[in-house]
Amino acid sequence: MPDRTVIRGGFVITAADEVHADVLVEGGRVAALATQDSQVSQGWAESADRVVDATGCYVIPGGVDAHTHMEMPFGGTVAADTFETGTRAAAWGGTTTIVDFAVQQRGRSLREGLDAWHAKADGRCAVDYGFHMILSDVNEHTLKEMDALVEQGVTSFKLFMAYPGVLYSDDGQILRAMQRTAANGGLTMMHAENGIAIDVLVEQALAAGRTDPRYHGEVRHALLEAEATHRAIQLARVTGSPLYVVHVSASEAVSELAQARDLGLNVFAETCPQYLFLSTDNLAEPDFEGAKYVCSTPLRPVEHQAALWRGLRTNDLSVVSTDHCPFCFNGQKELGRGDFSRIPNGLPGVENRMDLLHQAVLDGHISRRRWIELACATPARMFGLYPRKGTIAPGADADIVVYDPNVTQVISAETHHMNVDYSAYEGRRVTGQVRTVLSRGELVLEDREYVGRAGHGQFLPRGTCQYLL
Amino acid sequence: MPDRTVIRGGFVITAADEVHADVLVEGGRVAALATQDSQVSQGWAESADRVVDATGCYVIPGGVDAHTHMEMPFGGTVAADTFETGTRAAAWGGTTTIVDFAVQQRGRSLREGLDAWHAKADGRCAVDYGFHMILSDVNEHTLKEMDALVEQGVTSFKLFMAYPGVLYSDDGQILRAMQRTAANGGLTMMHAENGIAIDVLVEQALAAGRTDPRYHGEVRHALLEAEATHRAIQLARVTGSPLYVVHVSASEAVSELAQARDLGLNVFAETCPQYLFLSTDNLAEPDFEGAKYVCSTPLRPVEHQAALWRGLRTNDLSVVSTDHCPFCFNGQKELGRGDFSRIPNGLPGVENRMDLLHQAVLDGHISRRRWIELACATPARMFGLYPRKGTIAPGADADIVVYDPNVTQVISAETHHMNVDYSAYEGRRVTGQVRTVLSRGELVLEDREYVGRAGHGQFLPRGTCQYLL
Amino acid sequence: MPDRTVIRGGFVITAADEVHADVLVEGGRVAALATQDSQVSQGWAESADRVVDATGCYVIPGGVDAHTHMEMPFGGTVAADTFETGTRAAAWGGTTTIVDFAVQQRGRSLREGLDAWHAKADGRCAVDYGFHMILSDVNEHTLKEMDALVEQGVTSFKLFMAYPGVLYSDDGQILRAMQRTAANGGLTMMHAENGIAIDVLVEQALAAGRTDPRYHGEVRHALLEAEATHRAIQLARVTGSPLYVVHVSASEAVSELAQARDLGLNVFAETCPQYLFLSTDNLAEPDFEGAKYVCSTPLRPVEHQAALWRGLRTNDLSVVSTDHCPFCFNGQKELGRGDFSRIPNGLPGVENRMDLLHQAVLDGHISRRRWIELACATPARMFGLYPRKGTIAPGADADIVVYDPNVTQVISAETHHMNVDYSAYEGRRVTGQVRTVLSRGELVLEDREYVGRAGHGQFLPRGTCQYLL
Amino acid sequence: MPDRTVIRGGFVITAADEVHADVLVEGGRVAALATQDSQVSQGWAESADRVVDATGCYVIPGGVDAHTHMEMPFGGTVAADTFETGTRAAAWGGTTTIVDFAVQQRGRSLREGLDAWHAKADGRCAVDYGFHMILSDVNEHTLKEMDALVEQGVTSFKLFMAYPGVLYSDDGQILRAMQRTAANGGLTMMHAENGIAIDVLVEQALAAGRTDPRYHGEVRHALLEAEATHRAIQLARVTGSPLYVVHVSASEAVSELAQARDLGLNVFAETCPQYLFLSTDNLAEPDFEGAKYVCSTPLRPVEHQAALWRGLRTNDLSVVSTDHCPFCFNGQKELGRGDFSRIPNGLPGVENRMDLLHQAVLDGHISRRRWIELACATPARMFGLYPRKGTIAPGADADIVVYDPNVTQVISAETHHMNVDYSAYEGRRVTGQVRTVLSRGELVLEDREYVGRAGHGQFLPRGTCQYLL
Repeated sequence: MPDRTVIRGGFVITAADEVHADVLVEGGRVAALATQDSQVSQGWAESADRVVDATGCYVIPGGVDAHTHMEMPFGGTVAADTFETGTRAAAWGGTTTIVDFAVQQRGRSLREGLDAWHAKADGRCAVDYGFHMILSDVNEHTLKEMDALVEQGVTSFKLFMAYPGVLYSDDGQILRAMQRTAANGGLTMMHAENGIAIDVLVEQALAAGRTDPRYHGEVRHALLEAEATHRAIQLARVTGSPLYVVHVSASEAVSELAQARDLGLNVFAETCPQYLFLSTDNLAEPDFEGAKYVCSTPLRPVEHQAALWRGLRTNDLSVVSTDHCPFCFNGQKELGRGDFSRIPNGLPGVENRMDLLHQAVLDGHISRRRWIELACATPARMFGLYPRKGTIAPGADADIVVYDPNVTQVISAETHHMNVDYSAYEGRRVTGQVRTVLSRGELVLEDREYVGRAGHGQFLPRGTCQYLL
Repeated sequence: MPDRTVIRGGFVITAADEVHADVLVEGGRVAALATQDSQVSQGWAESADRVVDATGCYVIPGGVDAHTHMEMPFGGTVAADTFETGTRAAAWGGTTTIVDFAVQQRGRSLREGLDAWHAKADGRCAVDYGFHMILSDVNEHTLKEMDALVEQGVTSFKLFMAYPGVLYSDDGQILRAMQRTAANGGLTMMHAENGIAIDVLVEQALAAGRTDPRYHGEVRHALLEAEATHRAIQLARVTGSPLYVVHVSASEAVSELAQARDLGLNVFAETCPQYLFLSTDNLAEPDFEGAKYVCSTPLRPVEHQAALWRGLRTNDLSVVSTDHCPFCFNGQKELGRGDFSRIPNGLPGVENRMDLLHQAVLDGHISRRRWIELACATPARMFGLYPRKGTIAPGADADIVVYDPNVTQVISAETHHMNVDYSAYEGRRVTGQVRTVLSRGELVLEDREYVGRAGHGQFLPRGTCQYLL
Repeated sequence: MPDRTVIRGGFVITAADEVHADVLVEGGRVAALATQDSQVSQGWAESADRVVDATGCYVIPGGVDAHTHMEMPFGGTVAADTFETGTRAAAWGGTTTIVDFAVQQRGRSLREGLDAWHAKADGRCAVDYGFHMILSDVNEHTLKEMDALVEQGVTSFKLFMAYPGVLYSDDGQILRAMQRTAANGGLTMMHAENGIAIDVLVEQALAAGRTDPRYHGEVRHALLEAEATHRAIQLARVTGSPLYVVHVSASEAVSELAQARDLGLNVFAETCPQYLFLSTDNLAEPDFEGAKYVCSTPLRPVEHQAALWRGLRTNDLSVVSTDHCPFCFNGQKELGRGDFSRIPNGLPGVENRMDLLHQAVLDGHISRRRWIELACATPARMFGLYPRKGTIAPGADADIVVYDPNVTQVISAETHHMNVDYSAYEGRRVTGQVRTVLSRGELVLEDREYVGRAGHGQFLPRGTCQYLL
Repeated sequence: MPDRTVIRGGFVITAADEVHADVLVEGGRVAALATQDSQVSQGWAESADRVVDATGCYVIPGGVDAHTHMEMPFGGTVAADTFETGTRAAAWGGTTTIVDFAVQQRGRSLREGLDAWHAKADGRCAVDYGFHMILSDVNEHTLKEMDALVEQGVTSFKLFMAYPGVLYSDDGQILRAMQRTAANGGLTMMHAENGIAIDVLVEQALAAGRTDPRYHGEVRHALLEAEATHRAIQLARVTGSPLYVVHVSASEAVSELAQARDLGLNVFAETCPQYLFLSTDNLAEPDFEGAKYVCSTPLRPVEHQAALWRGLRTNDLSVVSTDHCPFCFNGQKELGRGDFSRIPNGLPGVENRMDLLHQAVLDGHISRRRWIELACATPARMFGLYPRKGTIAPGADADIVVYDPNVTQVISAETHHMNVDYSAYEGRRVTGQVRTVLSRGELVLEDREYVGRAGHGQFLPRGTCQYLL
């Protein structure tokens, strides 16, 4: 690996600053930034092993996608992207860090679950990765293991208020787990939907012959997302635990978050591009095409989008992750023909996030700096990766994307790099495209040619959430 | 002026990043930042004209105080700090930019008012300065002048809902001015107190013999601040104008702001150190000592402080300014003996802001980065000075403070540099102190020796608010 | 006048009870209610001077319309109903009590204003009447007069935040008047619109050639009603005065009221049928027909109606009055051709209220008892007339309406009895109609024949609001 | 039974009216009300079989206590009042109707549970009674039974979010039951506490040696009441079911109710005298005396009382019931020595409610009419007993209390008539006392002598909630 790289002539954007500057990379880290007309930078090019020309481009921190599910078993099948294909696609889309979810199997230890995920990822990844831990089974043993995991850099724990019998934790288990994170510095992440009530509605819908994908959206009522969000917040207050609500999709849930945050509570939340750009109109597409858009929380009527965009501006929503969990239409989504509840839940998206949010900048939804904040800086801070990840500053990992804001592309399964046979955004035209990507100073994508390698990506032991005083 | 300065060995803190980095200054601007162990920075010291040792210290952007009143005529007297003494004190306190308020006199043009303030400041200032414009008289002529001022870099306009007969604008005038800023990109700033109602209560209090300073706090009812805040917000909504509410002190006013911001409105607000650290207990000090704490909005009962700190954390309050407007106790504050309404309104504070907020970091109220955000970055962005001011990034003005976070000092009129015979924080012990200050690369304070000069500071034509999409 | 009347066979509805009962009237008052099968009532018919057959009908308290303007001078003309024609029309519509607004002229005493209104009404009215007092001029003298008026049974005082230069009081005057009602038990009534801001918008609209009636609705922005409502509430809190907001039309104003009432404040409000049944669609009717619907607060877009109905159910709105203030289309409304600001503000309605609200019962908006509560009981209590008015109970004035709930009628200027050449509800079909009306035991309407007389109606000295603890 | 009774000379108070009137009772029902000076009433005394002198007294509807648990098995013991002793005590306290809770046993039918309660009550009661049904086991069979019960006059169904393993229903069961009441007109009643979370805290408290009664209050966190209240409301919204929340004690729960009611939802709630007059101070009484005050929801810190009183005034709380469920201190409460979780939950109160609320009138918390509304009229309407119960109107059951508002009494176990060895209000002095009580025209209490009989009281088949449009 060349020791010195200069990224020259670009416009550096971080969550806080927008400056014309050259960036010097040494030893995989950002060594320096300098104005392009300074004496300092003028010497760099000569001494550098490699010069990346960023003229006319943005130079931005590599994206941090804090919510992916590579090779995730779900509903009798497995998410179609491996860590190899998924992280490669991430890099194509300008994302240089993922935080994936290791899953505890019921009756087994967290350790076993984590080891299994390490085994899947180790030596396969194109970019760096960390793990959250999904607790399927909160008990005396796993509660103790949580402390050990925090020590080992797995500092966030996801619980489910949905999926009874599978991943579901009851309120007593949630309370116990939150007591633990309140004490050990970990962050409780929550899938906030009232799964107990939803499962009744699912059963009733199926019994009534309402089996098409669009009923997936109807039974998972927005008020049942809001309810669970409120409940999670109150449990967090009782225990003193911080809370991070994943994949918020309902405007009513945003209202609950806004109320909590007005009180100054340590309550945070993410949404995902699918909730910002897609809607129940997609779920209702004929010929079972709606199955492509089945995920949980579900897509909502288009009116909810305005509340989500507003939440992103007011910081009631502070992260955009993908919840990337791809299943092929053929052979996987099809498992749910005639029974929407058997459609594997999840959408591909890890490759599209940075571009879709850049389009949102152009559409006037968010500012350019907010783009970086939502997609890079805040997830890095939230999950203890800052300042290694999420910014371009001296000492940070040289995870850097040269982004051309002027190119127009059309999103399509034919051209994407995710291992899935459809795109949720098929045919959508967006402006802006990743040109070149560095991960810890190494080129992964160079002028839209993939030059990375499986195994470059390293496991990231993470610190604790940096938003708590 | 030496061409190259290196600030070496410090811990650079901006609103977004905290990194160990050396800072290279060339031509008055930040040329580069580099890790301390990089090859790049190792060459800097040799070639530099000056090396500032920041070992063990923070290296932070110079403070931006967006609310000062130097030489402000008020109530038959004049604020005691000139632009010379006031900006010098600002520098001692780590503030390298002030935005002062030029005042239109009734019946005169904005131009005349602005010229008068230029005359007061020109050639006198130790650090850079800009102007807001106070409109005392909204009419066809002054409305037109507003457009011209925006062109000339005076992009914010303050109106008063208080002080009938003096600075007061009625709701129709406010509406007209807001229509103008909605169109010309300017920012409407508001003193939000219902002065019409307050003046009745003042008259009644005096008639009833309630003349002591503490009655100043009682007649300026918190609900009358909240009322005016709400009213200003609604007028802003009707016109589509952005709004910035100055010196918020009442928890009820914070609630109004929180509601507005949850709606995603372009509504912003500041509070001041006096509301965070002082209370009506001070106003009630015997022997007319309470007069030292007479300002408007007034100090509130101590319970309001928690709401203000929370507002600073939730970003419902996004700036801390000083409203620096000093009047000596002897000869000035004393004008109001026997009639609190004749006490000149205002407190000294420009020198104390950065230190008090650093103490707030130590007290756990805010994070270190939030300190810089509230005191430097956000006011710079809010008032169109970013990225020249408010950050340390390649290309920014080299307004840099070396701050020793470990020194303990005792605030006192005996040692402060403001031209006023008392301190509002007399005897208060705080940890942290400014050691060295650069303004555009020039030393103003060096190891706590003043080496600046009147006239170094330049007028800053400002752009428009950078928080509007 | 016959001494004993029996109303037999009807279904008696009050705010609280619905019972099949006969009603015995003696000496102008309700002497007794008895079940129809009791021995008691069976003797009544024989001994009665008159038997009114109410079989198949409701027997309800006479309506109390707490907001009328008979012979009100406005904008260079005078409301078209005299006390004679207006109270006669009221009786036709089942309303047996009105509370009209006596107006103080600027520079004159309240006494003079009240005397003038007494002179207009005395000896002319078909049904009983009381007076509120409009304060055009809050000063030391009129403040003192308020106490006297409360003693004389004029216990409510209306102030205007609209109509600068005419009826407008500034916030200081409002504060003073509220301090007085807080002390003397009176009730402050408020026209809550920010007239200062509105007048600017009026001027701008006219200057821009937007002169049609529909611009009347646009310039009187819903947020400017909400703003004034909030302001009035805060002033009431500062003074400890109860507050009654008149003619609420905007959903945003209802929200302000709901917030205040959730706090348990003594804040009350009314709306009017025109806001429940009409909308800006009417204001936009072509050929200047929109002028028929010009009133202030203005009609709102139809979406506001749902919020008003909800407010009536939640009791955030607790009274429905008419704000009856009729101006003929020909000769009066026409004064504003080419300048909407010259259209006299006001609509006829005193005759239609009970019927429209009965229709609302049929439409499922409110319950039958709530109909009586909104239209009879609550206004009586609110304005100190209970239990003489607003209920059917032993000892109450025998103001009783026999109402046929099954008859269908079409509202029309051709058949109504108000002295005005159009109906705001022309052609609207409603079910339910007044059949017979008694006022203090005397027949005013008998089987839809008018048998009343001018001068029967008496002035009602009122007690104070009965909703304050 | 004498056929005609006259109650003479009293001041009749209903939820709506306050009038001086004599009341004629014939055949167990109110035949007539008449003014005391009317010819009508003057004949009554002569022809009456009995004259009750109410001079100087209030004549009020008999109280309706919608929440009692006579002979309720709980925690291995049984509530100490039988239907005989409990209804007798109710009568002593001016309550002439109770609605008690029949309990379904798990695995058994509703029918069996209801039959068991009929057997307990039949032939034993001094005053009339109805039943709610507690569902311990929501399943296909019991869902169907609900429809039948509504037909039979058991129209309200209570579910528990607390007491897992005993009475608890999960959210799916709640959803199903609510779907049923949405369809069959029944009312869902809810014990709203998150019992799953609470049981974890109970277990932890006991494990930590925190076994005293006061820990009962600590583990049942106010936020966990608010949470469950919010959840119940959302489930009600999803299903379209009306909801009645029982025994609200936490200010945070009142806030949830206020929000729901501002939306116009069919959400109702009660509180109980113990939450209005007692607090955690009582729970903390030494020597295990705190056990006397153990009930669920628990007593709260005294600050919550203000929110409850406000809720009663704003109608966010619309009923005051007792949740009467007495356990003797000796032998029953003592079961929980050393383990607060084994203290039987419940307090005596059926005899004290009317007096305590009359004291609240004197203390300025509520008006006289609101007293009757909260204690008589609204519970009667809420549970389908109006106008037979809850008012004094022609045709209503002659359940009438002659109440002396001037007598002062001291509440004490030595003088009360409930079958329990302590009073929760021991030593409390209140003004006002029941003098005479009629139930369906028969004397039960006569000048404070008990003249009633077991078996007079009849089962009341109830209609459905009368507050739904």
